[in-house]
Amino acid sequence: MTIDDPQVLAEVTAAFHAYEAALMADDIPAMDALFHDAPTTVRYGVGEVLYGIDAIREFRKGRGGSPQRTLGRVAIATYGRDLATADAEFYREGSQRRGRQSQTWVRFADGWKVVSAHVSLEGTTA
Amino acid sequence: MTIDDPQVLAEVTAAFHAYEAALMADDIPAMDALFHDAPTTVRYGVGEVLYGIDAIREFRKGRGGSPQRTLGRVAIATYGRDLATADAEFYREGSQRRGRQSQTWVRFADGWKVVSAHVSLEGTTA
Repeated sequence: MTIDDPQVLAEVTAAFHAYEAALMADDIPAMDALFHDAPTTVRYGVGEVLYGIDAIREFRKGRGGSPQRTLGRVAIATYGRDLATADAEFYREGSQRRGRQSQTWVRFADGWKVVSAHVSLEGTTA
Repeated sequence: MTIDDPQVLAEVTAAFHAYEAALMADDIPAMDALFHDAPTTVRYGVGEVLYGIDAIREFRKGRGGSPQRTLGRVAIATYGRDLATADAEFYREGSQRRGRQSQTWVRFADGWKVVSAHVSLEGTTA
């Protein structure tokens, strides 16, 4: 299994940044196109747990957009030709807490899609 | 790509529970054996961000064990024969906050390994 093949890494890096741009613009169709359309897709957000693409879509419609944020360290790794992880730190406007976003990307016939995502703010363990 | 092949799902489910047992017992060698031994492996914990297996090992040695917890809903999905995601809710003893753990598992020559993990406590968005 080839780790971090340059071509694959470039593809996933582009998909990652396309998602980030869509999130910042609250472009729901663009976000939706980058998540796998299946009941198995999971998104854990800062304040919610969502199972299946339907629940994720409902949340997005009702959210009114994500807080604006800037990215910190971004770590993308690819395993073979069809799998990647993207782990990124971020800072929301007006917040001192470090955010963390993890995504698992899979290549399907219609392109790279997120199958699982987890977003949280770094906190105390209490 | 076969989603949720029963054999693959059984393998990953066993690996997931082996990791949970190791975590609860603070069995560091067992935990270590289930994480991919590479600088690309990432673990975001409730209160820390760790890049690379060396940083993850150092954290485990100094931690004195995880808080005891019980699992809630567990959602494992497999994509093809070599990739899986495991998303699980948990509740720590003495805490009312819901915990969430996401792991990306990859099959290597020496078995299934976590390549990225993210653990957080559900919180407010402020």
